[in-house]
Amino acid sequence: MAHTYKLIYFDVTGKGEPIRLLLSYGEIPFEDKRVEFGEWPKIKPTTPLGQLPVLEVDGKAIPQSTAICRYLASILKLDGKDAKENLALDVALETLFDLQKLATEIKYEKDAAKKNEKVEKLKQVLPVYFGKLEEYAKKHNGYVAYERISWADILFVCVYEVLVNAVGKEAVASYPSLQQVKKNVLSAKGINKWIKNRPAVEGYDLKQDL
Amino acid sequence: MAHTYKLIYFDVTGKGEPIRLLLSYGEIPFEDKRVEFGEWPKIKPTTPLGQLPVLEVDGKAIPQSTAICRYLASILKLDGKDAKENLALDVALETLFDLQKLATEIKYEKDAAKKNEKVEKLKQVLPVYFGKLEEYAKKHNGYVAYERISWADILFVCVYEVLVNAVGKEAVASYPSLQQVKKNVLSAKGINKWIKNRPAVEGYDLKQDL
Repeated sequence: MAHTYKLIYFDVTGKGEPIRLLLSYGEIPFEDKRVEFGEWPKIKPTTPLGQLPVLEVDGKAIPQSTAICRYLASILKLDGKDAKENLALDVALETLFDLQKLATEIKYEKDAAKKNEKVEKLKQVLPVYFGKLEEYAKKHNGYVAYERISWADILFVCVYEVLVNAVGKEAVASYPSLQQVKKNVLSAKGINKWIKNRPAVEGYDLKQDL
Repeated sequence: MAHTYKLIYFDVTGKGEPIRLLLSYGEIPFEDKRVEFGEWPKIKPTTPLGQLPVLEVDGKAIPQSTAICRYLASILKLDGKDAKENLALDVALETLFDLQKLATEIKYEKDAAKKNEKVEKLKQVLPVYFGKLEEYAKKHNGYVAYERISWADILFVCVYEVLVNAVGKEAVASYPSLQQVKKNVLSAKGINKWIKNRPAVEGYDLKQDL
């Protein structure tokens, strides 16, 4: 019997988009419930940890976006086949999480001086982290963990989008093997369809690269 | 042939201690290299991502603490046996990471007003997160993910120590099944030995509970 999936998150990309992309990659139908910020205080106490995203699988609520992604990656065979592959996968994932965190902090920082400080900090680590990811992607012919698609490649395109919107395209575009990762992910049938039809993203939207 | 392990980190618990505990749990001998903050600028560019911890396995440098922990957990069979167990494990882990992050921010916040704000924020989410972890631990007879030890239990004792030092023992001590988790982990032979002999931790030290 097919399972039912309902993703509950806000009407933004953020921590929900990697989950949406994983479900789309697997061509798994899901309800994409988007909570308005005004409704949130009412819904918050009904969630397992007072946070979103939550993925309901057959009605059972699962919290923690990374745990949700890992679960979907596992059932979609987008994780490694052994400890060595999973190590390469996890190093890439954690490096992407670091960048995602820095870029997200910039997005939500209201104080202009502090925003600038955070942009400078991100611009400092970006060439180091992207340099390393580029090295991995070159070694694996357009995939960041090993020579076939993993969920780190899917997370990469989400983080890429957030980074362009935080520090501009010129800071991230000049890495040929990472561009190949993006191309590989965006050409996957389910992902291509999702990006084409999803609600528009403000600023740079991956749709421009389809 | 036995592998050689060298952990390079600062002379603090932080992101290094879960790695030290995992190696100790497995009774794997390792060099515990502690870098002084003064030496760091010289060492930083020699690390894969300009960050510590780094674990050298047979001389090969692995960055990213969580990736290192996952790798060790995998070879020590401290991860789940299937997708369902790993989901339970990951939900517990990510919840602990959230708490670890909040407590660490308190530790390093120098501004008194901001420190207070962060303490208040942590005190708000702590009963929700610990309530959920207590529920899991009760269900699994003293283990947070499933009915045998996982690396989330080992991470738990590290986070517990940091939390006591951030917001005081009374905020975390009144969860009987989580106290059982601590007891189970601290009674593991390799961990017991490590905690007994490691450099003292300022403030509350798990050693007090041996």
